Amino acid sequence: MSDDVNRQLVLIERPVAEVERRHFELRSEPVPEPGDGEFLVRVCWLGFDPTQRGWLNDVPSYMPPVQIGEVMRSSGAGQVVASNHPDYAVGELVSGTFGWQDYAVSDGRGLAGQVAKVPPGVPPTWMLGPLGVTGLTAYFGMLDVAGVEEGDQVLVSGAAGATGSVAGQIARIKGAAKVVGLAGGPEKCAWVTDVAGYDVCIDYRNEDVGRRLGEEFPRGMDVYFDNVGGPILDDALMHLALNARIALCGAISTGYDVQELPPGPKNYAQLIIKRSRIEGFLVLDFVPRFGEAIGELAGWLTSGDIKVEEDVQEGLENAPATLARLFTGANLGKQLLTVAEPPLPIAA
Amino acid sequence: MSDDVNRQLVLIERPVAEVERRHFELRSEPVPEPGDGEFLVRVCWLGFDPTQRGWLNDVPSYMPPVQIGEVMRSSGAGQVVASNHPDYAVGELVSGTFGWQDYAVSDGRGLAGQVAKVPPGVPPTWMLGPLGVTGLTAYFGMLDVAGVEEGDQVLVSGAAGATGSVAGQIARIKGAAKVVGLAGGPEKCAWVTDVAGYDVCIDYRNEDVGRRLGEEFPRGMDVYFDNVGGPILDDALMHLALNARIALCGAISTGYDVQELPPGPKNYAQLIIKRSRIEGFLVLDFVPRFGEAIGELAGWLTSGDIKVEEDVQEGLENAPATLARLFTGANLGKQLLTVAEPPLPIAA
Repeated sequence: MSDDVNRQLVLIERPVAEVERRHFELRSEPVPEPGDGEFLVRVCWLGFDPTQRGWLNDVPSYMPPVQIGEVMRSSGAGQVVASNHPDYAVGELVSGTFGWQDYAVSDGRGLAGQVAKVPPGVPPTWMLGPLGVTGLTAYFGMLDVAGVEEGDQVLVSGAAGATGSVAGQIARIKGAAKVVGLAGGPEKCAWVTDVAGYDVCIDYRNEDVGRRLGEEFPRGMDVYFDNVGGPILDDALMHLALNARIALCGAISTGYDVQELPPGPKNYAQLIIKRSRIEGFLVLDFVPRFGEAIGELAGWLTSGDIKVEEDVQEGLENAPATLARLFTGANLGKQLLTVAEPPLPIAA
Repeated sequence: MSDDVNRQLVLIERPVAEVERRHFELRSEPVPEPGDGEFLVRVCWLGFDPTQRGWLNDVPSYMPPVQIGEVMRSSGAGQVVASNHPDYAVGELVSGTFGWQDYAVSDGRGLAGQVAKVPPGVPPTWMLGPLGVTGLTAYFGMLDVAGVEEGDQVLVSGAAGATGSVAGQIARIKGAAKVVGLAGGPEKCAWVTDVAGYDVCIDYRNEDVGRRLGEEFPRGMDVYFDNVGGPILDDALMHLALNARIALCGAISTGYDVQELPPGPKNYAQLIIKRSRIEGFLVLDFVPRFGEAIGELAGWLTSGDIKVEEDVQEGLENAPATLARLFTGANLGKQLLTVAEPPLPIAA
């Protein structure tokens, strides 16, 4: 290991719109020593989610904002390299909220339950994607919030993203009659249909979304899993079936910035005419059921029923630019960044 | 009775924004004869609801639009003056969708179940208000859609209106910890607190709604029964408790016109942070349970637990102007119009 220091990306200025490198300072501190009941993790991979952008705003939310002077909060996976904790052994691969840094000290408690061990045979980065926050968001959003049922007509935005791609595949597994995705550009759309197995993908950058939704959902959609908000949500509202359920997962088209918010969905009164609902959710509320969900998702992943894609960037210093990729639609699949290789032999 | 003709207000031009007298023509036809299985109603009172404005737009909705050349669709109450129907006797008071006219022929079937008989001792106009569409909308919206529970913090917009006033009183009866109304002007606000028994009424015309909601709901509101949409919905979204339920009853602030829709609720992503939902509904979906609801509402009305107010205009020719009153906030309580007095002795 070349790292005798712990590099950290510390927030020094809150972004107003796009996240940039200048909002963070790269500092070096000595590699910390784990205390009693603690262990030290060498962070190897970072996971990026749109919600992380929201943590940079100094506004009330579901979680305190990252403070000026703090290491950026982030999910990550890595290897235990020193341990005074009876449940975490040196060499084990783990995932948790480790932050944008080379090394993290943990007592095993995390934002969403415990620091997880990577099960044998599972790629560690899956713990940040389909078996982590994004897969669990897709799972509970599609099954519990949207309540997808056999025969449903289903629309998913962000269908080439980490969450949307899994959400649509779950709908298909559960017997949805039709699963339509929305993605930006022909390359992503081809992946959504050819690899992820959606019935149709609408290219929102090159097609008239409103017209295409009318063609694909002549009797309206029963479920809309919405990651993006904006004009596409308005288009979807005009094509609801009766008693439709919109699971509101995110609104990435707003950029999560703190400038003036864009207008909301002007067609929202369609919810009355169609006796439908929009329901927001956070995966953190489902922590007690994570085990059950991860078990089912792992089965679908290993059987090939769910296909996933990863976009892997390199180098801790590139973390801010990597987060920004989510908001320009640069990524196909889960946005990741490699910080280092596991330094020790891997213990099961 | 002076009426040997049936005057009718017939739609001749669709309004784009406000409803005006010129959009209708007052025609006279001979008083119709009821056929086999039919009866003739002398329309005595008309009821006005915001949704009637929507029926004038030539756009897809939950019910076909009123067509050019048709009598305006409207709820009404009146007296059976001739009958070839075994279940409806001359002299009985009835309510149904009779339209803007002096006389209506009916076979007993209505838009929402059967033409109803006014129970003995009940003011006939209650069948258009607290025991009709508006009371039922309040009942199912507050109990089934919002799912109000004991201890809830509740906000109701349009609290001096026919639906809102009843909705808040139902919340109080069901044990809500606090019921706050929104109404326009000190006179309406005084009625909302002093007569309808709300804990607080915010005067949206003279107070800063966002600031006042923060004061009244320091931990957020659990239920918002929304009749108005617009900026007040945005303010409410900033003051939700976790797992809040917004029952979307209407959006009267949009005027239900067919010009460019106003912007939607820009703060709708608060639904994610607060794991909350907006759910639209139509009272027509609850027809099978109308009997149960009317029974309970009638009990609360006769016991005085629910207080109601009526705004009564006069004269069939004033029906368009009376509908327009709903959108300028001119009315306090149920908007009604008297067409005639019952011409015959009343049969129980």
